[in-house]
Amino acid sequence: MSLDQVLACIDGQRESSLERLFRFIAIPSISADPAYQDDCQRAAQWCAAALKEAGISAGVRPTIGHPMVLGHYRGAGADAPHVLFYGHYDVQPVDPLEQWRRDPFDPALVDVDGEMQITGRGACDDKGQLMTFVEAARAWTTETGGLPVNVTVLIEGEEESASPSLIPFLNDNADELKADIAFACDTNMWNRTTPAISTMLRGLVYEEIFVHAASHDLHSGYYGSAARNPIHVLAGILADLHDETGRVTIPGFYDGVPELSARQKAQWAELDFDDNAFFDAIGLSESAGEAGYSTLEQIWSRPTAEINGISGGYAGEGAKTVIPAVASAKVSFRLVGDQDPETVRQGFREFVRRRLPSDCRAEFLSHGGDRAITQPADSLWVEKTRNALTREWGREAVLIGMGGSIPVVSQFKTLLGMDTVLVGFGLEDDRIHSPNEKYNLTSFQGGIRSWARILAALAA
Amino acid sequence: MSLDQVLACIDGQRESSLERLFRFIAIPSISADPAYQDDCQRAAQWCAAALKEAGISAGVRPTIGHPMVLGHYRGAGADAPHVLFYGHYDVQPVDPLEQWRRDPFDPALVDVDGEMQITGRGACDDKGQLMTFVEAARAWTTETGGLPVNVTVLIEGEEESASPSLIPFLNDNADELKADIAFACDTNMWNRTTPAISTMLRGLVYEEIFVHAASHDLHSGYYGSAARNPIHVLAGILADLHDETGRVTIPGFYDGVPELSARQKAQWAELDFDDNAFFDAIGLSESAGEAGYSTLEQIWSRPTAEINGISGGYAGEGAKTVIPAVASAKVSFRLVGDQDPETVRQGFREFVRRRLPSDCRAEFLSHGGDRAITQPADSLWVEKTRNALTREWGREAVLIGMGGSIPVVSQFKTLLGMDTVLVGFGLEDDRIHSPNEKYNLTSFQGGIRSWARILAALAA
Repeated sequence: MSLDQVLACIDGQRESSLERLFRFIAIPSISADPAYQDDCQRAAQWCAAALKEAGISAGVRPTIGHPMVLGHYRGAGADAPHVLFYGHYDVQPVDPLEQWRRDPFDPALVDVDGEMQITGRGACDDKGQLMTFVEAARAWTTETGGLPVNVTVLIEGEEESASPSLIPFLNDNADELKADIAFACDTNMWNRTTPAISTMLRGLVYEEIFVHAASHDLHSGYYGSAARNPIHVLAGILADLHDETGRVTIPGFYDGVPELSARQKAQWAELDFDDNAFFDAIGLSESAGEAGYSTLEQIWSRPTAEINGISGGYAGEGAKTVIPAVASAKVSFRLVGDQDPETVRQGFREFVRRRLPSDCRAEFLSHGGDRAITQPADSLWVEKTRNALTREWGREAVLIGMGGSIPVVSQFKTLLGMDTVLVGFGLEDDRIHSPNEKYNLTSFQGGIRSWARILAALAA
Repeated sequence: MSLDQVLACIDGQRESSLERLFRFIAIPSISADPAYQDDCQRAAQWCAAALKEAGISAGVRPTIGHPMVLGHYRGAGADAPHVLFYGHYDVQPVDPLEQWRRDPFDPALVDVDGEMQITGRGACDDKGQLMTFVEAARAWTTETGGLPVNVTVLIEGEEESASPSLIPFLNDNADELKADIAFACDTNMWNRTTPAISTMLRGLVYEEIFVHAASHDLHSGYYGSAARNPIHVLAGILADLHDETGRVTIPGFYDGVPELSARQKAQWAELDFDDNAFFDAIGLSESAGEAGYSTLEQIWSRPTAEINGISGGYAGEGAKTVIPAVASAKVSFRLVGDQDPETVRQGFREFVRRRLPSDCRAEFLSHGGDRAITQPADSLWVEKTRNALTREWGREAVLIGMGGSIPVVSQFKTLLGMDTVLVGFGLEDDRIHSPNEKYNLTSFQGGIRSWARILAALAA
C-alpha cells in the first residue's frame, strides 16, 4: 500500500528533512521590521523552490507588502478532492535578543532533558509547522510520483504583521485559490502525545496609542508636577482597562460574547486540563484572569485586553530626569463569538478619549482586526482528518479551542466560502513569539507523518 | 579701573569665547552611557587645559567613575577671600535623536526670531554655564595677570548620572577643596532680563523598578488574560502614585515637608510669575500639579513623584502579540524641606510591594538620593553677588527657588561645611535634558560679564 511506502520514505529522510528546515529557519524573515524586507523575499523564493521539489508547481507573487507563495498540484484527477493548504513563512521579531541562549537564526537540534528540540525563531511558528506539510507532499511525490488529492498551497509573509496584503490578494485571485476545503498548520496539539483539531479561534484587534502632552521633552526638576506627564496619563488609562475581577471595563466590550454551551463546557472538562502544569511551565502559579471562568475558558472562549508593549521617556542605562512629550502603548484585544472588531476598536478609542485630562491628545494607529472563528466540528473533512491523526499518534484526536488568532481563516470563509480545518503540532511550551522558540522533533516528524496520512484519508 | 578693562576685554573676545564653547560642546561627554567614557575623559582634559589658559593651574583627577577636574589659583594673597567654583562637564543623553533639528554635538549660533541661540547638548547644562566663569577668569588674567580672589575650581563629570564618585572624592580631598564659600553655575535667571540667585533647591530620589511575572515572554493569544501581565501590574501601581488632587499617596511621603512661610510666599508673589507664559512655552495650557498650590509653589517648594521612563513588551514597529516577562519604570521624587531620601525610597518600595499581586516580584535599582537644600539668603556673599548681578543686568537680582537638584550643594555643606551661592544664566526654555537644548547668546555673554563683576565684588 502506497501510504506505507510514503511513511517509510519519510522515516528514511529524517535527516535531510531537518536540514531543509534548518536552512529555512536561517532566513530572518521578520515581516514587521522593514529592515528584513529582502529576507522575506528570500524566504518566499525558498518556499517556492521547496514546493517545486515536492512536486507542486509554485511561484512567488508580488503584493503591496511581502510576497505570497502560491503553488498548485492538479495531478490527482478531476474527481479527487481539492484542498488548499495554508502556512506562513514570516516570523516574529526576536527582541529581547540577549535572552536567547542561541542565535535565533542559527537553528540546532538540542537535547533538553532527553527531549530533542529544534531551536530558532520560526522553528514552530510557522516554518516548522508548514514544513510538516511540504515534507509529507515531497514523500508522496517521491514514492508515488504525485499527490493523492489536488492541492493548492498558499504561504503568506505577513501573518505576524497584520496581513495587510491578504484581503486584496484573496480577492484578486479568488478563482485560483478556491478549493473544497482549507487546511492550516499553525495550531497546537492538545499535549505532547495527543493530537488535536482546533475548532474555535479568538479574533484580534490590535491598537497602538500615543498620548501627547507638552510640545517637547521637559526637565522633571524644572517642570515636575506642574507639567502634565503623559506616562502618568497612559498608566492611569491602562490601569482602568480591567476591574478588580479581571473584567474589561470598556462599555459594550462584551456585546456578542456568548456563554459557553453546556455541551462544549462538558467536552472541555473531559480534557482534564492541568492548571498546575500550564502555569508551572511559564513560572507562574495561578490564573490572573477573569473571575468565574476556568483557565481553559479564559484562554479559549473569553475575550481579553492585553498591553503588549509600553514606552515613554528614558529607557537607557542610568537615570535621566525627563518628562517626555509623548508616551505610547500597544494594546490588543482577543475577540470571541460575535464581537465586532470595529466596535471594539472604537469602544477602546472612546474609552481612552474620555479619560484624557486637559492638555493631552491621543493618537491611534490600527494594526488590524479580525473576528473570532468557529469552525464546523462534524464535517466529513474533520472526521477523516481526526481518524488519520488518531491512527498516527495512537490516541484519540481531540477538538479544542485556541486562544490565538489566524486571520486568514476568517477571510477564507468570507471571501472564498471555504471552511478551514486547523491541524497543528505545536506545544504550549514552544515559546513562539518569545526568546528561545523551539519545535519538538516529535512534533516535526509526527507532523510530517500525520499529513501523509491525512492526504491519504482525504482521497479515500 | 581694572574691572572696566576686564569687561572691555570680554567684549573684545566675544568670537573666540564662542569658538571655545563650540569646541567644548562638540565633545559628546554623556556620562550615563558607558559608550562615551573616552569622550568624558577628553572633556575633562579639555577643561583642565581651558583653566590653565585662564591662569588657573589645573589637572585631571581619576575617580572610580569619570574623572574630576581640579584647579587652583592662589595668587590673590593670604588675605583675599577664597572661593570654590563648581560646574560639570558631562551632559545628558540625547535621545530621541531624531527630534533634534541639528546634530547635538555640532553646535551653531542660530537666529530664532531675532534671538541668537547657541545650540547643542550641554549648550546650557552645564558647558555654556561653566564657561561663563572660565571666560571671566581668562579675561581677568589677560588684563591684570591674575584673579582678584583665590579660587579653587571643581568640575565634575557625573552630575547627570547620580555622581557616584563625588562623596569619596570630596572626602579624600577635603583639605584641598575647602574654601570660604562655594559658587555653582548650573541654575536659571528669573527671566531673560532679570538675574537671580537660587536659594532653595529640591532634593532628588531616583528609583528604577522592574516587575517580573512569567519566566519568559508569552504569546498573548495562548496565554492572554490567564497569565499575569507585568505591564498591567506596573501601570496599576504607577497610576496609584497620585490621588485625584495630584497629591502623592505613598504613606509618610509628606513627612518633613514644610508649608511655605508667609514671607517667602509674599516674596514669590511679588515676582509676578506668568503662568500662561510658562505653560505656553511648553505647549500646555495649565498646571497638572497638586491642587491648592500655585505653579511656582508646585515647582519650587512642593515634593513630586514623576515617572521618567517606562518600558515593557514590544517597542518596535508594527504589532507583536506578546505578554512580556518583565516591565520596568524609572521613577523620581523631588524632595523639599526635611524629607529624608532614604525614607522616601523605602516608602516607595513598600508602596510597590504592597500592590504586587500573586506571581509578581519587584526588583529595585537605586540611582541616588539627595536632600533638599535651603541656602542662606542674607549672607555678605549673597549680598555682594546680588549687587554685582544687579549692576550688570540693570535690574534688581531676585532670590528664587529651583525645582531641579544639584546634589553637590548638599555635599559641600555636609562634608566641607561650605554654603553655596547658586548663580546661573539659564532660561526656562533652554530645553536642557531635551532635544534642541540651547543657551541664549545674551546668557553666555552676560554671564561672563557677571562673573567678572562678581569676582571684583568679592575682593572689595
